[in-house]
Amino acid sequence: MNGAESLVRTLVEGGVDVCFTNPGTSEMHFCAALDRVDGMRCVLGLFEGVVTGAADGYGRMMDSPAATLLHTGPGLGNGVANLHNAKKAKTPIVNIVGEHATYHIAHEAPLTADIEAIAWPVSDWVKTSKDAASVAVDGAQAIAEARKAPGRIASLILPADTAWNEAEGVATMPDVPPPASATEGQVRDCADALRSGEPVMILVGHRALRSDALEIAGRIAAKTGAEMRTEFAAARSERGAGRVTPERIPYVVDQALAVTSEIRHMILVGCKTPVAFFAYPGKPSVLIPDTCQPHLLAAADEDVMGALEWLADEVGAGDAEPVREELSRPDLQSGKLTIDTIAAAIGHLLPEGCIISDEAITSGRMLHPFTKGCPPHDWLFGTGGSIGRALPEATGAAVACPDRKVLCISGDGSAMYTIQALWTQARENLDVVTVIYNNRTYAILHGELRNVGANPGPKAHDMFDLDRPNLDWVQMANGMGVEAVRVETAEDFNRALQAAFAGSGPFLIEAMV
Amino acid sequence: MNGAESLVRTLVEGGVDVCFTNPGTSEMHFCAALDRVDGMRCVLGLFEGVVTGAADGYGRMMDSPAATLLHTGPGLGNGVANLHNAKKAKTPIVNIVGEHATYHIAHEAPLTADIEAIAWPVSDWVKTSKDAASVAVDGAQAIAEARKAPGRIASLILPADTAWNEAEGVATMPDVPPPASATEGQVRDCADALRSGEPVMILVGHRALRSDALEIAGRIAAKTGAEMRTEFAAARSERGAGRVTPERIPYVVDQALAVTSEIRHMILVGCKTPVAFFAYPGKPSVLIPDTCQPHLLAAADEDVMGALEWLADEVGAGDAEPVREELSRPDLQSGKLTIDTIAAAIGHLLPEGCIISDEAITSGRMLHPFTKGCPPHDWLFGTGGSIGRALPEATGAAVACPDRKVLCISGDGSAMYTIQALWTQARENLDVVTVIYNNRTYAILHGELRNVGANPGPKAHDMFDLDRPNLDWVQMANGMGVEAVRVETAEDFNRALQAAFAGSGPFLIEAMV
Repeated sequence: MNGAESLVRTLVEGGVDVCFTNPGTSEMHFCAALDRVDGMRCVLGLFEGVVTGAADGYGRMMDSPAATLLHTGPGLGNGVANLHNAKKAKTPIVNIVGEHATYHIAHEAPLTADIEAIAWPVSDWVKTSKDAASVAVDGAQAIAEARKAPGRIASLILPADTAWNEAEGVATMPDVPPPASATEGQVRDCADALRSGEPVMILVGHRALRSDALEIAGRIAAKTGAEMRTEFAAARSERGAGRVTPERIPYVVDQALAVTSEIRHMILVGCKTPVAFFAYPGKPSVLIPDTCQPHLLAAADEDVMGALEWLADEVGAGDAEPVREELSRPDLQSGKLTIDTIAAAIGHLLPEGCIISDEAITSGRMLHPFTKGCPPHDWLFGTGGSIGRALPEATGAAVACPDRKVLCISGDGSAMYTIQALWTQARENLDVVTVIYNNRTYAILHGELRNVGANPGPKAHDMFDLDRPNLDWVQMANGMGVEAVRVETAEDFNRALQAAFAGSGPFLIEAMV
Repeated sequence: MNGAESLVRTLVEGGVDVCFTNPGTSEMHFCAALDRVDGMRCVLGLFEGVVTGAADGYGRMMDSPAATLLHTGPGLGNGVANLHNAKKAKTPIVNIVGEHATYHIAHEAPLTADIEAIAWPVSDWVKTSKDAASVAVDGAQAIAEARKAPGRIASLILPADTAWNEAEGVATMPDVPPPASATEGQVRDCADALRSGEPVMILVGHRALRSDALEIAGRIAAKTGAEMRTEFAAARSERGAGRVTPERIPYVVDQALAVTSEIRHMILVGCKTPVAFFAYPGKPSVLIPDTCQPHLLAAADEDVMGALEWLADEVGAGDAEPVREELSRPDLQSGKLTIDTIAAAIGHLLPEGCIISDEAITSGRMLHPFTKGCPPHDWLFGTGGSIGRALPEATGAAVACPDRKVLCISGDGSAMYTIQALWTQARENLDVVTVIYNNRTYAILHGELRNVGANPGPKAHDMFDLDRPNLDWVQMANGMGVEAVRVETAEDFNRALQAAFAGSGPFLIEAMV
C-alpha cells in the first residue's frame, strides 16, 4: 500500500470517516485510495471555504473531527477564513493539505508556497510528512491532536511522493490526554464569590453550553441567586423548551455594559472575560466594570463538566431546581415581511431537534427571544467573526446529522462569500433550509460607521450597499441545483417555511426585507 | 485629518487611485475618508478573492499598483490565493488590511488573528502601522515597495485607532531604486553561447514578453539562428499580428522535454530555467536535458530591456529582421460545439487590443495557435497555479483599460471559485465577455490522475465531476446582474461571441462542450 492509502486507512480506523474535499493534482493518490478503502465518505466542495466551513459545522455537531482535503498553499489559503472561525470555535478538524513532491519544492514551481506558514495562523498543530513511511504515523498523531480537548485544528501537509511511494501500513492512534481538572483553589474561589452576597453572574461558554452542563450551572444559579448568561459568540448552544436557556451577553458595547454594570463577581465556565467584538473610540474593550472580579472556574480546554459538578457540590446545589424554559411559540404574523415576522415564523415552525446555523448578522439578533421556547434545538453562531460561514457550516452539520433538519439563516452579504455551498447541498441532497435576508446591503456596516464615529458620505455608503445590481437568490440557487422561492409578504414567508420544513432536501427562501 | 485620510491622500498623490475593496468595521474610517478626498476610485467586490484577483489584473495591465482594502486576518485570508498568483506574476499591489485598534488586539476578540503571519507568504513587504502619525509614511513606503522592479506585493496593516486618531498629513514618496543592470559577464556569456554554433533557445518571460522586448529578442534570434520560446506561465504576453509571437514551452512534461531535447544552451531573459508545473513519478522536475547549459541574461527583477539591447549590440543584431507574426485568422466553424470550434471563433472574431484572461485550463490550450495571427492583443495567464483567477483578473483589467475589450475564458470548475466577480462587472458595467467552457468536470484532474500513475475508481472520479447537479451559468450570471446565453452549436457560439464583442458591458456565454 502507498502512503496515501496508509493515511486513508489510518483516518478511517481513527474514526475520521468523512472528508470534505477540493482536491488537485497533488492529492490524486489520496483520491485514488478512496476506491480501495471502505468507510470514508467524501463530500466535494467547489471552493475551499465551503470545505473548511463544512468541516467546522460537522465537528461542532459531532465533537469529532472530519478531514478536509485541500490543494497546496493557495487551496489552504482559500480555506483560511473558515478555519479561523473553526479554531475560535475549538472545533476538531484534521486538514490534509497536498504539497509538491519533496524533491520538486526547491524548483519554485508556480504552486510552490510556504504551506506551513499559511497553516500556522489557523492551526494548533502543523506537520509536513517527510516520507511515505511516516504518513500513517503523522496522520494518527494529527487525529490525536485534533481530539485534544476541547477540539483543535491539526494540519498535515502531504508531499505528493509521500503519498505515492510505498508505505508500511496503518498506524495506531496515540492516547489523547484527558482535559485538566479544575483545582480546589479555583472551585473554592468561585464558591466564595457565589456566597458573598454580592451580585454574581455565571457566564457559560463552549462545552458549558450543552444541556447537561447548563442544567448543573442552572442549579448553581438557582441555589445561589446568581444571574446566568452565555458568551455572545457561541459555537454551539443547546437550548429551547425544557432546557436551561440563558440569554447572551449583548453584542452592542453599551448594552453589554448595562447588563454587567451591577455585577461584582463573574464566574467564567468554559469561556473568558467577555470583550467587545470591535474597539470603538472612547469605549472600553472589556465588557465588565472595574468593580467586577472575574473568577475562572474552568477554561474551555479544562474539564468543564467536572468543575461544574464540583462547584454544585461545594455550594450545595445538588437538588436545586434550575429555571428551565417553558414550551412557548410566537404566533404567525401577517402583512409586510420584516425581520420580526420572519422571527415569529421561525419560532412558530421550528422543528424539534433543528440545527440553526445563524449568520443573519443584523437581521438575526431578534431570533433568540422568539425561539427560546421552541422544542429543543442547537444554535451555531459565529465565533471568529469571519463571514461566509453559515452556508458551509449548515452543509457540514447536515452531513453530520442526517436525521435532523438544518436551518441556515444568513444575510445576503454574508451568503455571497461561500455561495458555492448550495451546490454541495444539492449534490448530497442535504436537508438544509436556507433563509436569505435580502436587504441589499451590508447592514451591519452602516451601524458600525456610526459606532466608530466616522462621518460617511455617498462614496462610503456605496461600499456597503449591494444594490446596483440587486442579487437574485432564486436564480443563483437554481443555477446550483437548489430549489428556491422569493417571498415579499409575511404570509408567503410562513407558507414557504412550512413547506420547506415539511419537505426534504435543500431549499432556499429569499426573504425580501 | 485622521490617519485614514492621510493614507488615502498619500495613495492618491503616489499614483494609486484605484482601490478594490471588501471592507468591514476596522476599515470604516478609510471608507469615510473617500468622501473627503478626490481622485480615488473604489470598486467593491463581494468576496476578497475577487478583490485581490482584480488588483492582479489591474496591476498586470497598468504596471502600477492598485490598492486593496481588506478586513482583518480572515479577509486577507480569503484573498491569499489570488495574491499568491499576483506575487508569482510579479504584479505591483498595495494591500491595506484593517486590524483591531492597537489596544484591543491583546483581548483576543473573535477576529483577532496574526495578520502579519497570514500576509507574509503572499507579500514581499509587510508592515503594521504603530500610530496615526506613521500611517502616511508607511503608506508611501508601501507604494515604493510595490513599485520596485518588476512589481511587488506590499501589505500595510492598519489598526483601527491609527486610522481614526489625528495624523500629520500626506507623506512624500521615497525614491524607487531602478532595476539592476546585467553585468558584462552575463552578456558576454550569453553572446558566446549564441555564437557557439550549438543549438540555442532564447526563453523569454515577464517583462521580456512585451512587444518592444520581443522585437529585440526576435532580432537576436534572427541574427544568430536561435530558437525562441516563452515561459509557460506568463503574466502578460503582448502578441499577435505584426509582433514577434513565439510559442510557449508546453505544460505537459514529455512535450516540453521533446522541445528542449536538442538544445545545448538556453538564454534566460526575465525568467528562470523552466520546471514542471507538478512532479510526476519517474519524470524530471527540470524541463531541459542535462546536456543543456542555462545562461541567465537578466532575471525578472533586473533591467531586461537594457540587457536585451546590450546583447543585441554584442551579437550585431541591430538591424536584423525578426520573424513577426502575419495577420491571419481561422475560419468560423459550424456543427457540433467543441473546443476547436470555440478556438476558431475566438481567433476569427478577436477585436484588436483585446485583453484575454485565460483560465480555460484544458479547453484553452488550443487557443494559442488559433489566435497568434489575430490583431495585437494581450494574453494574461496563470502564474501561480491557483484557480479562481480569471473572472477577477478580467474585472481588474477592464477597470484598468476601459477602452479595450476584455475576453475572459474559464473552465466551469475554475470559474466557481470566484464567481462573485460577475456582480462587480455588472455594478461597474465593465466591458468583459466571459466564455465558460461547461464540461461539467475538473477535466484537468482526470488527466492528472493518469499522469501521476494513480489508478482511480468511481469514488475518485466522483471528486472531479461537476455534474449531479449540473451548474447553470446563465441563471447564476443573471442572478448577479450579468446577461448571459447558453450555446450548444458552433453557429450559436459564433453568433453569441460576435454579438458580445459588438455590444458593451458584461456578457457571459455558457459553452456546452
